[in-house]
Amino acid sequence: MDFSEADSVDAVVASFADTPDPRLREVMTSLVTHLHGFLRDSRPSLAEWETAIGFLTAIGQKCDEHRQEFILFSDVLGASMLVETMEAERQAGDATSSTVLGPFHVVASPERALGDSISLVDGGEPCLITGRVTAPDGTPVPGARIDVWQADEKGFYDVQVPDAQPLGNGRGLFAADDDGRYHFRSIVPAHYPIPTDGPVGQLLTATKRHPYRPAHVHFIVEAEGYVPVTTHVFVAGSPYLDSDAVFAVKQALVRDFAPVDDADTADRLGLPNPFRRAEFDVVLQPTG
Amino acid sequence: MDFSEADSVDAVVASFADTPDPRLREVMTSLVTHLHGFLRDSRPSLAEWETAIGFLTAIGQKCDEHRQEFILFSDVLGASMLVETMEAERQAGDATSSTVLGPFHVVASPERALGDSISLVDGGEPCLITGRVTAPDGTPVPGARIDVWQADEKGFYDVQVPDAQPLGNGRGLFAADDDGRYHFRSIVPAHYPIPTDGPVGQLLTATKRHPYRPAHVHFIVEAEGYVPVTTHVFVAGSPYLDSDAVFAVKQALVRDFAPVDDADTADRLGLPNPFRRAEFDVVLQPTG
Repeated sequence: MDFSEADSVDAVVASFADTPDPRLREVMTSLVTHLHGFLRDSRPSLAEWETAIGFLTAIGQKCDEHRQEFILFSDVLGASMLVETMEAERQAGDATSSTVLGPFHVVASPERALGDSISLVDGGEPCLITGRVTAPDGTPVPGARIDVWQADEKGFYDVQVPDAQPLGNGRGLFAADDDGRYHFRSIVPAHYPIPTDGPVGQLLTATKRHPYRPAHVHFIVEAEGYVPVTTHVFVAGSPYLDSDAVFAVKQALVRDFAPVDDADTADRLGLPNPFRRAEFDVVLQPTG
Repeated sequence: MDFSEADSVDAVVASFADTPDPRLREVMTSLVTHLHGFLRDSRPSLAEWETAIGFLTAIGQKCDEHRQEFILFSDVLGASMLVETMEAERQAGDATSSTVLGPFHVVASPERALGDSISLVDGGEPCLITGRVTAPDGTPVPGARIDVWQADEKGFYDVQVPDAQPLGNGRGLFAADDDGRYHFRSIVPAHYPIPTDGPVGQLLTATKRHPYRPAHVHFIVEAEGYVPVTTHVFVAGSPYLDSDAVFAVKQALVRDFAPVDDADTADRLGLPNPFRRAEFDVVLQPTG
């Protein structure tokens, strides 16, 4: 029997019937069903489908060691945030809210000692970020690994501007102390545009969407026996908190980066006075 | 308000509300709706979504001047055939059935004179392919352009085996004569596997799908004032006519490549005797 619009899903789903892994079979069945649904609904012409194929190809070809354009595409379509949200529902219990990984976790963060600065270059408003990692009942999580990365005060990550920042600038991997506490120095990050020099940027331009994300510091916090949390702390008052290009803002993750005038603390921690300070406690859910 | 599973489609669709081109807005709205539907239905974990992103990236990176892995992915998901089928419904009227373009139309077919052979290398079973291009009422279409390409008797296109075939082998661009007729010499094509050395091949292996396509010759036939037809002629009796890896078989496109014992004709056309012969008439629908 010839392939037809009415039977297309059945024909293609049947071709996946012998898939040994039941989860893969389930996912492919769902993909075919929804992909054909999209095509029947939007009814692309052959020329439009060719454009779509060319667009997806260009996204793949834009990727390299330091650039992940497919994550960016997933991000601007809200797909990353939806997957993240569903994972949190499934796993997180009373943990700190999670949000998207984003495309810039492409370099291993250098291990640093508590109190170190992750900002290795001049410029930017100095700040102190402190917090405590605990279980939902308040039990501290000593040795929790706290992986942080952020843009500089111009809104760029190290990998975007290799001439201006050494690799590892704005990144750090810390271990919480015996009481689950951590602190490190940095600069207040800036809001910034996601990279617009690729196919995703062309899509944003064509749809008159702005490319900006509100200022934030990325965190992945993990410890043996706990579900890892991938999240951000957002800077209160930053532009674009209401229209993040990747839909990642959660109100519970916004923190004041409050001005502090305290010469003793500044001196002890190696900060100029005054400086700014944010507190970000992280709650991890035990596994199982 | 935080992003949530229940409101994700609304939030992301709203971000496309200012898209100036109404067709692009419509397509993006449909894409977001169905993509989120797929994610809510299949509920990928973050790790699974990361695998999916890596898979799409690898597809894009496999593409080059002579390889189009995203078309192949669209083909094995039946997406290409569905788009083709919908386009034909919209445009084709009483024209010859269309089928998929496939990933091998990546080299311009060399212009050849009627009667030329498109097979430039030794091997294979010689054949004659003839036909007539007409409107639905039988009016001939003089000068119709007939672009053909095919695999050799081992199942390879020129671009796949540059050491064994010169570029242009198995390809030809012909102009129909004053009566709309064409003929050219070739070899009977073989059934063959689509390329399996990329991500799409990995998918087929993981899902225990075979990669084979039944033997066929690709055609694009076009003429001023008519809707172009992209199609194949399939070789009757070929394996895989019932399970084409890309769902492209239509019964109306299957033709006997019948043995002919006719020394005079063979001698006149430059063929050995006996040879095989297929007739494939093409009906084009006038535009508008």
